[in-house]
Amino acid sequence: MIPAHVAAGKNTKSAVGSNKLGPKGFQAAGIASGIKAVEGAKDLALIYSEVPARVAGLFTRNRVKAAPVLYTRRRVRGGICRALLVNSGNANACTGKKGLMDAEAMARLTASALRIPHQHVTVSSTGVIGHPLPMKNIERGIPSLVAKLSPYGFPDVAEAIMTTDTHPTVATEKVAIDGGEITILGMAKGAGMIHPQLATMLAFILTDAEMEEGALSLLLREGVRSTFNRITVDGDTSTNDTILLVANGAEGNSPLYPGDGRFGPLRDALFGVMDRLAQAIVRDGEGRTKVVEIVVRGARSSKEAEKLAFRVAHSPLVKVAFFGQDANWGRIMAAMGDAGVPFDPQKVAIYFDDTLVVKEGMQAEGTGENKVREVLKKEEFKVIIDLHEGTSQVSVLTTDLSYDYIRINASYRT
Amino acid sequence: MIPAHVAAGKNTKSAVGSNKLGPKGFQAAGIASGIKAVEGAKDLALIYSEVPARVAGLFTRNRVKAAPVLYTRRRVRGGICRALLVNSGNANACTGKKGLMDAEAMARLTASALRIPHQHVTVSSTGVIGHPLPMKNIERGIPSLVAKLSPYGFPDVAEAIMTTDTHPTVATEKVAIDGGEITILGMAKGAGMIHPQLATMLAFILTDAEMEEGALSLLLREGVRSTFNRITVDGDTSTNDTILLVANGAEGNSPLYPGDGRFGPLRDALFGVMDRLAQAIVRDGEGRTKVVEIVVRGARSSKEAEKLAFRVAHSPLVKVAFFGQDANWGRIMAAMGDAGVPFDPQKVAIYFDDTLVVKEGMQAEGTGENKVREVLKKEEFKVIIDLHEGTSQVSVLTTDLSYDYIRINASYRT
Repeated sequence: MIPAHVAAGKNTKSAVGSNKLGPKGFQAAGIASGIKAVEGAKDLALIYSEVPARVAGLFTRNRVKAAPVLYTRRRVRGGICRALLVNSGNANACTGKKGLMDAEAMARLTASALRIPHQHVTVSSTGVIGHPLPMKNIERGIPSLVAKLSPYGFPDVAEAIMTTDTHPTVATEKVAIDGGEITILGMAKGAGMIHPQLATMLAFILTDAEMEEGALSLLLREGVRSTFNRITVDGDTSTNDTILLVANGAEGNSPLYPGDGRFGPLRDALFGVMDRLAQAIVRDGEGRTKVVEIVVRGARSSKEAEKLAFRVAHSPLVKVAFFGQDANWGRIMAAMGDAGVPFDPQKVAIYFDDTLVVKEGMQAEGTGENKVREVLKKEEFKVIIDLHEGTSQVSVLTTDLSYDYIRINASYRT
Repeated sequence: MIPAHVAAGKNTKSAVGSNKLGPKGFQAAGIASGIKAVEGAKDLALIYSEVPARVAGLFTRNRVKAAPVLYTRRRVRGGICRALLVNSGNANACTGKKGLMDAEAMARLTASALRIPHQHVTVSSTGVIGHPLPMKNIERGIPSLVAKLSPYGFPDVAEAIMTTDTHPTVATEKVAIDGGEITILGMAKGAGMIHPQLATMLAFILTDAEMEEGALSLLLREGVRSTFNRITVDGDTSTNDTILLVANGAEGNSPLYPGDGRFGPLRDALFGVMDRLAQAIVRDGEGRTKVVEIVVRGARSSKEAEKLAFRVAHSPLVKVAFFGQDANWGRIMAAMGDAGVPFDPQKVAIYFDDTLVVKEGMQAEGTGENKVREVLKKEEFKVIIDLHEGTSQVSVLTTDLSYDYIRINASYRT
């Protein structure tokens, strides 16, 4: 069933990470098809599993969903996936019926080139909203992609899914199992519009583990909660966010299930990949000069802690103060007060890393301005907010708001 | 009961607006007391009514309320006001018990210098959060203020309440009544952290009309809903927002009440003053190069329209696109989809002024790019979003997000 030219091993380009292959039984390719205006910029990618694989997906909660999201969500419900087609440079969002037809055409063209059912192909897009896809480029690109498929093609995929990202985002983990070894490979794009609910983010996580039905979506949901849904760059949520987890069982382990003794190490490794991708996305946030972890602790519930942490993480005034290396804790207090969460301002303590700056809602006495300034000069630091109201804690990773964020986003489309 | 040196008319400095006085029976003064670091910058102001006046107030909904807000809110409940003391340069917020004592001390010092009950003095502050007030400057300043009180002092008040505002914000209206004339004078400061719920905004509106008890707070609430609560600069809400409406009855009209035939013209004039102050605040928004009215119409309820309008008005990506003069309607659609309001994206139309750019959720055919570019080059324009879901409409005034917003706020405190 697999076309001859997609057999493994014939391509010896630089592989993922430190010269390693992706998970067993997966091949990939990424090319420049001319969707992006920049000559030679990769913008079309294909991931292929040599055997039918299980798939689970999570998608944007934005009410304005791009055509590939509407299409792929339906496909993922079927539970089986053989191929993932992805383009950058055009989001195929707000493109009406034509957009939906284009998304389906992308799947059908891929399926027919690979000789697999079109229901087993997912489609993802990222880029500018509101422009029809240049289908000619995609039609021409798909046969080239299929011809280039190789177990060494993943770095090209990571590159082809980028938009304003400054570098490809890849993470891998290995887990020993049943005398063999499971590989997990994740690739993501982020950069702008990062927010909980997966805002403009595409992430594809592949593993050669064999999993029982249901285990996959359980893992994905649980993992996203503590990783991708805990990062934010600007609070805007995109129309195209998609995260797909694909497991093809090529390792040949006996099927994993929750409660299984072997499940824990796999979960840890998977969450590790997701966490590294999520963190890498924030670190590559548009124009950021700082990465700041907002920790809210001593809250009455994790829901309240999360609301507070995100309100602080999204406040333009707080983010600009980070950029200005200004210990402006008053803006943090003001943002907290605006989160719709009850708390007693007079009990609040705030630390910058381990330096206490606010005690009982006021400037802490004896805090050396120099010590605080040293923390704010760092590229990464923590803001720890202790409410002294309860025992719940949540941590959110955010960036500062810089001149470059504005430069990038004022000129992105033009 | 009025000290001799506060008698009207002895000062002949330039008066409010085109050489006019404020409302009858009010006097004012503004001085540089040294709270602001800049030599000679006015930072302390006093407004005085020669007779006891009715007062109504609205205050920030931020849970972190500055001491003067906590103090003045209590005073306003009493319904009577003779004097309003205001300082800029220091917000007296997050200053604990000392802050509350300082706010009360400000009222008591003012009361004793004016020989009025301290319960009839309101106190407002704006500026940096978390620093104790320099009470020595205020103690020294109050007698100077009282000595300088004059019916011509209002421009000095408008100047003394400024922080990063680039100019004083003043509006006046006159209404004929009972053969005489009512004057309404409003002064405000805004500039940063502007948001519904009155975010860092101080506004003082004075009138010499005689009003029945209850009429004042009714008018204030109704007026704010369609003026100050419909503007936004950065979505941040401050700890100090205060709007006070003071009516001293010095015109001598028979008391106005809702339902009264004379009430309509007064209300229109008052709302006109509030609207002009609110608009002026947005036009003076930090670093803005554009003023954009976001109109959401065809909504199923005004609550939903308002949520959508504010979600669009607060989106950093939308605001940066305005700055970049980029007709990026996709970001508008994405922001709408994230507002938590149900609507059918396929029914949405978007106009930039009267140019249709989105029809049925897609790029409108035949829209000249040049025509759209002309609209985006304008300093002020409208974005009209028609949901085609119902008949409700809400309009919100916002700004773009520019390099200067970041420059101002990265360096404001230092």
